[in-house]
Amino acid sequence: MATVVNPPRGMRDFLPAEKAKRENMLAVIRSVYQAHGFSEIETPVMEESSRLHAGLGGDNEKLAYGVLKRGLTTDDFAAATQALDLTDLGLRFDLTVPLARFYASHQAELPTVFRAIQLAPVWRAERPQKGRYRQFVQCDIDIIGEKGALAEAELMVATVATLSALGIDGASIRINDRRLLTSMLTVLGFPASEHAAVLITVDKLDKVGHDGVITELRDRAFPAFAVDALEAFFRRPQTMEFTPFGERSIRKGLPEGVDEAAVLELAALADTVDEATRALLTFDPFLVRGMGYYTGTIFEVVHPSLGYSIAGGGRYDGMIGRFLGRDVPAVGFSLGFERLVELVTLQSSSVEDAVALVFEDAAPTAHLLSLKTALIAQGKRVRLERKPRNMGPLLAQLAADGYTSLAQVRADSTVESLEFRSLD
Amino acid sequence: MATVVNPPRGMRDFLPAEKAKRENMLAVIRSVYQAHGFSEIETPVMEESSRLHAGLGGDNEKLAYGVLKRGLTTDDFAAATQALDLTDLGLRFDLTVPLARFYASHQAELPTVFRAIQLAPVWRAERPQKGRYRQFVQCDIDIIGEKGALAEAELMVATVATLSALGIDGASIRINDRRLLTSMLTVLGFPASEHAAVLITVDKLDKVGHDGVITELRDRAFPAFAVDALEAFFRRPQTMEFTPFGERSIRKGLPEGVDEAAVLELAALADTVDEATRALLTFDPFLVRGMGYYTGTIFEVVHPSLGYSIAGGGRYDGMIGRFLGRDVPAVGFSLGFERLVELVTLQSSSVEDAVALVFEDAAPTAHLLSLKTALIAQGKRVRLERKPRNMGPLLAQLAADGYTSLAQVRADSTVESLEFRSLD
Repeated sequence: MATVVNPPRGMRDFLPAEKAKRENMLAVIRSVYQAHGFSEIETPVMEESSRLHAGLGGDNEKLAYGVLKRGLTTDDFAAATQALDLTDLGLRFDLTVPLARFYASHQAELPTVFRAIQLAPVWRAERPQKGRYRQFVQCDIDIIGEKGALAEAELMVATVATLSALGIDGASIRINDRRLLTSMLTVLGFPASEHAAVLITVDKLDKVGHDGVITELRDRAFPAFAVDALEAFFRRPQTMEFTPFGERSIRKGLPEGVDEAAVLELAALADTVDEATRALLTFDPFLVRGMGYYTGTIFEVVHPSLGYSIAGGGRYDGMIGRFLGRDVPAVGFSLGFERLVELVTLQSSSVEDAVALVFEDAAPTAHLLSLKTALIAQGKRVRLERKPRNMGPLLAQLAADGYTSLAQVRADSTVESLEFRSLD
Repeated sequence: MATVVNPPRGMRDFLPAEKAKRENMLAVIRSVYQAHGFSEIETPVMEESSRLHAGLGGDNEKLAYGVLKRGLTTDDFAAATQALDLTDLGLRFDLTVPLARFYASHQAELPTVFRAIQLAPVWRAERPQKGRYRQFVQCDIDIIGEKGALAEAELMVATVATLSALGIDGASIRINDRRLLTSMLTVLGFPASEHAAVLITVDKLDKVGHDGVITELRDRAFPAFAVDALEAFFRRPQTMEFTPFGERSIRKGLPEGVDEAAVLELAALADTVDEATRALLTFDPFLVRGMGYYTGTIFEVVHPSLGYSIAGGGRYDGMIGRFLGRDVPAVGFSLGFERLVELVTLQSSSVEDAVALVFEDAAPTAHLLSLKTALIAQGKRVRLERKPRNMGPLLAQLAADGYTSLAQVRADSTVESLEFRSLD
């Protein structure tokens, strides 16, 4: 049976150094979010198929792993007309659908305004490619039950603080509002029935540029006068991004006649956050974000040195109602954990006092264990290592695992007589 | 769609207080194991079906959740003769099979003696019942590559230290060796071909007592002279459990003529650990443990106040060879995390400085956020709460979430002028 022994395709094993880095980062994220008043929860990795496939997950629903019902017979197999006939459960593809289900289930036990942390894996049967995995960790914070801009502001402040604690500075938050986006399309002349299709193209702006968007919209035969209006709007002398973020920059970024209430609400957000956070905000009238469930503000964190976003979120006031039967305001922000892991060079996980005790084959194990126990009692991390013929690989391994010094154990060694030498 | 919104049957949501307790316990366990020289790793929750169903998981294999292949057609469904024809992946039912696969995959990158920590969920499609869940966390430590009793001793010392750090004292470790067990059955006259079947009955000793075991063995028509010999052995004046653990107590617990080498090896274990740990050890000649892959020592942690074990493990030298193609010694110890969660009353997760700021509806959010930010900068955990008509439920909720004090925010409040009152 000694065949291929890799993890399943698109999934990863984490060796000690990588696992330690990931756990350290998660501990930092957890701790900052908790300081900002959020509370961690956990849901099972599986949800009932009917909930995962309720139309709330967009394209991700198609990528969900289905779990085979137990106890099926060949008759059941033969009678099945689709995969969903054979599955009752599925692995979650995001943390938002499970959160909505969780909230509907436990609302009575939760605060009126519930600030949730979820740091957990999700699964998508995507085509494996560099940087895309079939199991990956999401780090979500959500505020449920608060309809005002205070919710957005708390999320943004907490996210900026977390990135800073991870050593990531210089990121900025691009902000838009779904209502402004659709209002703008209406003003430009796109019929409401075509907004969703137009937005799919507009969402490619970062990749294909203004001309690319216009060309694609013309190819796809959207109303010419509306595409012309968008092209003219693109050609205005104003740039697309404005700071400081506020009412003035929002108005400058939009055509005349857009939804006034939405302008004022978004502008109010700028007045909510402090100067340090406001300096990081940018109004981006063409920010779309894929998920169809967003109903208001949407935001995305970008870093000047990266071609992709490292966090994103938005308001999804309609979603929890799908499970609960009455609408509850909700807004969430998700860190792209896997991207952050690549970006962050967190202080190594090495512990000040991680020591290795190297012993000869003949050493009595009781002696080794008593030395080990005594050093642990002093607060050290201790690993016993049998002395190899060649010390080189052992020293490299110890250093990689975060061990900082080493002592040889002799028959008469005591804790006091051990001579530690640094592994640097 | 506002229908039932519970998690899937047999699986659990964790609300903030419970989640915090679980994370605190995992942090304690991780930290003690790391101090003892173990390193944490992680594998994907799914493994290929062929590996999960390779005969290494015993009865647990039947409880594995299978994951439906993607892109199947109705022709595929109709052609399937068994569930495994439709699944390519499954959710792991334990952490030992994945560890063996991981080790085979990454051996070149790991230390010669590899001490692994795994703190992670597993899944079993069991009939849901009190205390049995379909998703639950296992906490395993394993030592791979060390064939001597040093490995067992390090595992036991680390496990005792972890239980102690969790506030669990008074537990004891029952020890046996698979080779002694089969040697004893041979000496008593049971043919080797019937050992596995006899052990299934002997494993019920704790539940049905000596007479119950003898009655069942007679009912199942095992050789009468062997059952007579076992009955006579049960009736010896010596009790079954002896301390201090060591060669003398092991010999007293066994019939004459058992495997001498195994006696001496097990006795050596007692000489390895220090006095404090040795006091917790008990030789139990009838300890069986279910998993068929054990090849040497087996152990189980019991607590006087409980009718079940809270940890267990053993040596499984043959298993990794199944994946690697050559045998590697291995021994592991697993904490029953879900049982420990019920047992432990860990210091509450409340943080010294977790404070709530209660504000009126009209309060400017920018003011609230700046107070919050300033308090976080002082190291506090801060939650904003809109003032409810009735403060009672809010106070209860805050206390449950670990918040310790509260201040009302007024229009002219500064960080210095906030008046905190305790929530006790």
